[in-house]
Amino acid sequence: MKIPVGVLGATGMVGQHFVKFLQNHPQFELTWVGASDRSAGKKYRDATSWRLDGTMPETTAELTVEECKPGNAPKLVFSATDASVATEIEQAFAGAGHLVVSNSRNHRMDEDVPLLVPEVNAGHLAVAKLQKQSRGWDGQIVTNPNCSTIVLTMALGPLVQFGIQRIVVTTLQAISGAGYPGVASMDITANVVPYIGGEEEKMEIETQKILGTVNGNKIVPLAAKVSAHCNRVAVVDGHLVTASVEFANKPSLADMRNAFDTFRGKPQQLNLPSAPARPVIYMEQVDRPQPRRDVERERGMAVFVGRLRECPVFDYKFIALGHNTVRGAAGAAVLNAELMHAEGLL
Amino acid sequence: MKIPVGVLGATGMVGQHFVKFLQNHPQFELTWVGASDRSAGKKYRDATSWRLDGTMPETTAELTVEECKPGNAPKLVFSATDASVATEIEQAFAGAGHLVVSNSRNHRMDEDVPLLVPEVNAGHLAVAKLQKQSRGWDGQIVTNPNCSTIVLTMALGPLVQFGIQRIVVTTLQAISGAGYPGVASMDITANVVPYIGGEEEKMEIETQKILGTVNGNKIVPLAAKVSAHCNRVAVVDGHLVTASVEFANKPSLADMRNAFDTFRGKPQQLNLPSAPARPVIYMEQVDRPQPRRDVERERGMAVFVGRLRECPVFDYKFIALGHNTVRGAAGAAVLNAELMHAEGLL
Amino acid sequence: MKIPVGVLGATGMVGQHFVKFLQNHPQFELTWVGASDRSAGKKYRDATSWRLDGTMPETTAELTVEECKPGNAPKLVFSATDASVATEIEQAFAGAGHLVVSNSRNHRMDEDVPLLVPEVNAGHLAVAKLQKQSRGWDGQIVTNPNCSTIVLTMALGPLVQFGIQRIVVTTLQAISGAGYPGVASMDITANVVPYIGGEEEKMEIETQKILGTVNGNKIVPLAAKVSAHCNRVAVVDGHLVTASVEFANKPSLADMRNAFDTFRGKPQQLNLPSAPARPVIYMEQVDRPQPRRDVERERGMAVFVGRLRECPVFDYKFIALGHNTVRGAAGAAVLNAELMHAEGLL
Amino acid sequence: MKIPVGVLGATGMVGQHFVKFLQNHPQFELTWVGASDRSAGKKYRDATSWRLDGTMPETTAELTVEECKPGNAPKLVFSATDASVATEIEQAFAGAGHLVVSNSRNHRMDEDVPLLVPEVNAGHLAVAKLQKQSRGWDGQIVTNPNCSTIVLTMALGPLVQFGIQRIVVTTLQAISGAGYPGVASMDITANVVPYIGGEEEKMEIETQKILGTVNGNKIVPLAAKVSAHCNRVAVVDGHLVTASVEFANKPSLADMRNAFDTFRGKPQQLNLPSAPARPVIYMEQVDRPQPRRDVERERGMAVFVGRLRECPVFDYKFIALGHNTVRGAAGAAVLNAELMHAEGLL
Repeated sequence: MKIPVGVLGATGMVGQHFVKFLQNHPQFELTWVGASDRSAGKKYRDATSWRLDGTMPETTAELTVEECKPGNAPKLVFSATDASVATEIEQAFAGAGHLVVSNSRNHRMDEDVPLLVPEVNAGHLAVAKLQKQSRGWDGQIVTNPNCSTIVLTMALGPLVQFGIQRIVVTTLQAISGAGYPGVASMDITANVVPYIGGEEEKMEIETQKILGTVNGNKIVPLAAKVSAHCNRVAVVDGHLVTASVEFANKPSLADMRNAFDTFRGKPQQLNLPSAPARPVIYMEQVDRPQPRRDVERERGMAVFVGRLRECPVFDYKFIALGHNTVRGAAGAAVLNAELMHAEGLL
Repeated sequence: MKIPVGVLGATGMVGQHFVKFLQNHPQFELTWVGASDRSAGKKYRDATSWRLDGTMPETTAELTVEECKPGNAPKLVFSATDASVATEIEQAFAGAGHLVVSNSRNHRMDEDVPLLVPEVNAGHLAVAKLQKQSRGWDGQIVTNPNCSTIVLTMALGPLVQFGIQRIVVTTLQAISGAGYPGVASMDITANVVPYIGGEEEKMEIETQKILGTVNGNKIVPLAAKVSAHCNRVAVVDGHLVTASVEFANKPSLADMRNAFDTFRGKPQQLNLPSAPARPVIYMEQVDRPQPRRDVERERGMAVFVGRLRECPVFDYKFIALGHNTVRGAAGAAVLNAELMHAEGLL
Repeated sequence: MKIPVGVLGATGMVGQHFVKFLQNHPQFELTWVGASDRSAGKKYRDATSWRLDGTMPETTAELTVEECKPGNAPKLVFSATDASVATEIEQAFAGAGHLVVSNSRNHRMDEDVPLLVPEVNAGHLAVAKLQKQSRGWDGQIVTNPNCSTIVLTMALGPLVQFGIQRIVVTTLQAISGAGYPGVASMDITANVVPYIGGEEEKMEIETQKILGTVNGNKIVPLAAKVSAHCNRVAVVDGHLVTASVEFANKPSLADMRNAFDTFRGKPQQLNLPSAPARPVIYMEQVDRPQPRRDVERERGMAVFVGRLRECPVFDYKFIALGHNTVRGAAGAAVLNAELMHAEGLL
Repeated sequence: MKIPVGVLGATGMVGQHFVKFLQNHPQFELTWVGASDRSAGKKYRDATSWRLDGTMPETTAELTVEECKPGNAPKLVFSATDASVATEIEQAFAGAGHLVVSNSRNHRMDEDVPLLVPEVNAGHLAVAKLQKQSRGWDGQIVTNPNCSTIVLTMALGPLVQFGIQRIVVTTLQAISGAGYPGVASMDITANVVPYIGGEEEKMEIETQKILGTVNGNKIVPLAAKVSAHCNRVAVVDGHLVTASVEFANKPSLADMRNAFDTFRGKPQQLNLPSAPARPVIYMEQVDRPQPRRDVERERGMAVFVGRLRECPVFDYKFIALGHNTVRGAAGAAVLNAELMHAEGLL
């Protein structure tokens, strides 16, 4: 008996990623799709221009799209709503008792909203109970970070033990991160766009929150300094980051490598359905990971690290790669919901 | 009456860039082309698979290729020879009294060889006179840096005054930097290759030498720490770098901007034919410079800087773009020769 | 004393191509720019998001944008208006006595409107005088074909003499042909889009009109059958076509080649400023022309042909390449105006 | 109990595709890998630069590479050898009693060698028995066509019944078709290479043989005329073709559509493990199939057809897409072997 789930904003690009990722999920069954008034009342098949590779899942195609209003939606809803409407919609659902597992950015930095990367900060779930108290909601909102932040924090997760002080990171981000139509081909063909609005700020502050610790009912952000340079490149899926990191206690190269190799988190302990066996996979080859060649491995749920070496400025430098629309969006949210389910929070 | 010049390694990709760049040069006339035995004796037209856009210059096409041996070559030769043979060939020419203006990496880090970016360190030419003393050569070897190093050091030139301490830089480099056939399309199409052999080391040590000062007859490298992350992206021409920089004396944002805008060097003072009017051009738009859109401006001889902003880790961060096969190779060497000509060193 | 000209729809992508192409024109001076109400009253600099490589021409940047209404516009106006409004705007200007040289598709197939490729059918200008008679206009509308049609008809121009019977053509078209934002990068990166709305029909019927003959005051379309397969590929500029052609009188291979090499038209006879010395340039290399390498040659105004060989199905097959935003749009219209100027029709 | 199989030329790019495709095959087990002397004696892991997405199958990685000589190789061997050595190697294996199922072009057009597309011409297997007679071999050589030919002939298979007379086809072929390093990125980035050596000839003559009929012991090629225009585009996997076809008996559009939809061949009747449920899948969307979006469907073994419409020159035109390294190479050969196994020929 699967748990029925819904998707808010199901016809958009992020929504489609949810629909695809939830297909054949062992615990959740997508039974409800919400979108704008314009789409409400139509079959999902007719309301949606399917933009992903392959074809639309048949069972979802036959669902009737509803308006994004609580009512007959299942208790657990994933939010893929656009930032312009997410605040209102998500609050309405949380207020009506729904568990809103959101990929939208609107509530990520709220004090009482967990910003989860389950392998890294599963304990942050604790702060969500403040929402009832501070907002009077019967439900809850739980969020996952921005796609590039997830890649970075998954790679930093194993290194927190060494006392992260400073990080300089440059991203080379895939076009799928911008949705559809998203990046114009005239902008990115044989080119780089060295700017993604709001992305650097998100990476800088979200990283501090994710790597922070729970003190009482509050998350104390990590005091590390983070500087991000964000770029769009002509890659379909997969955000690659270069990182130089300074530690309070510089580990040996072997310690670093061992930290990556032995890293496991709550999703692995709980054997969550979407959890990769190893959240961080170190690649030995001198020129890997690479987006096109590695992004689909481990169903897109692991982060690949490589090129670990001494940094002349800080302690170490390395690269990391993650699937932005899977681990960095739909897969992240589903893993969050699996964690909550395993912890009895549904 | 133009000065006759030759190109060593004229049939290769870098050699072709020299042939193209020297076309219609106001001071130099390409009268001699050298290549391997295999090509010697053939017309340049027949010995060369022209790989650049457009067609081979007609006057060069009719030249007969000679072996890369001094003899009837002009006094001034540009070296586009492959690193595997450059040491021997360049030394033979310098020993025979030629002025070898080289784009090869072989002698760049030699104590008595200037590694020139004329806007930044024209004074380094002084050390070349040691070559006669230490090596007994009648001629000289003068070099230009690696293509990505030039882009970085041109952007750093205006900032030396503030006391550069530490730099973390990530490159997004064009495929033309790897020559022909160079990067396989299976490696770079819709992909990033996060590794370029030897490139990071070159950027780190060449930058220190270029920004160094002449003390007596020696170049004292700048004591700044440099960390480079080098990546290949699917761009045809133009290396883009992201940089975070720490200074001994943090300037104001206005000082930084003013430094870029007012920067001029020897080539501008001497009004050298290939010198851009302004070596560094700051672009206001939030998402510029971009390789495909900006790389051909100023005949590829300026470096474009943008996105200057505070860095949460160091003092400032910005991006810079330069044309790797023009300012980063053939154009750089020709500008070096123009400088030497203007200074009476030919 | 240059002739003042205006551009209708000057702020859009096609309009920008006009602005760029008219820069430093020896006969025409751009003094007037028209756009929608939204832009009217602003400086061109402020009303326009410049999307082309390099920067906006300074003299145009300072012009004040006006509404697209006749009045104080110059007599000669180029139309880059969107098809959704072109009919009304162009007719208003023609009615008010303007000479409208249009790149829009709206009037191309009208009986009394010349669809010009000046090297091929300069004589078709004759039908424009019907416009006064049939429509009562003091002015005129003259058009150039769709960008892919121009490439094909320029290549077919030299072959009309052999009695073209049937043509099967497949296009590989550049993304710049779709304007901005145009083709989504998610659609075209490492992909082909095998469909361009309306393009095949345009190539099929426009080709027949262009290659037709004037009989009395009417254009009799060529009775050749044309079948087009149109595709979008990840190329920035330059439409490439493959063509198989059947003739009434099969020429020898040498005759074919000679026809391409010796082809000259009215623009060459009249030495028009934007006319390429040779409208069709045959390339000997087995793998040329290629879009990225050849499209900018001859300032984008020639068409490059290659790979002429026997066709097992028809008589001959070959490929052709032309610059879609220059020869296929702005440059085409300007050449039309130059022709009319030379013939005393301004 | 699986049948042991070997791969000749296993370390090259095509060989790697065989290794990948044979992984977890229900009938065949890869137990033997052959390559050049240089690799012989090494583990496959060490002898091979793995170029495909993901990682090398572990079981194959541990095999020891042997020289490409018959001896202890399994009876059934797949040949991925380079054309420069394939003739000699394949004949040696066939002579020694092996069944050589080859992807190489060397023997494709031999009279006594079947050129199989099992859905289309399974009956051609009959001619292979002539090999014993004419060459004295105990074994046999069976081949699959060139990758682009397979895509075309799979799409034409359902149409043979209407009497194919003439075909004009243009290909847009993926870079993976050229192996590794294959196409230089400088050649194909933001470009088209309108030439692939030997490809057009192969498409023209192989198509006639494949669609031919067995008469006695001989294959009588189809008398249809085929003209191919072959181009390389910046796509990773998937060859797309545009086709205009003339029939002896023009079918209705509904007949055409029905022919595609109902087409089934021997592999479907025999339910072969690698056979797609439907060999040809017609897509309704106006802009599909597309290489990046559709090539991986049906495990790469089906051919996708779309855009069926009237052709102004011939009867109908349409597009077709197939996976060049799966259905067009390794998968094709494995399907051939499955067919032979099912027919008791192993």
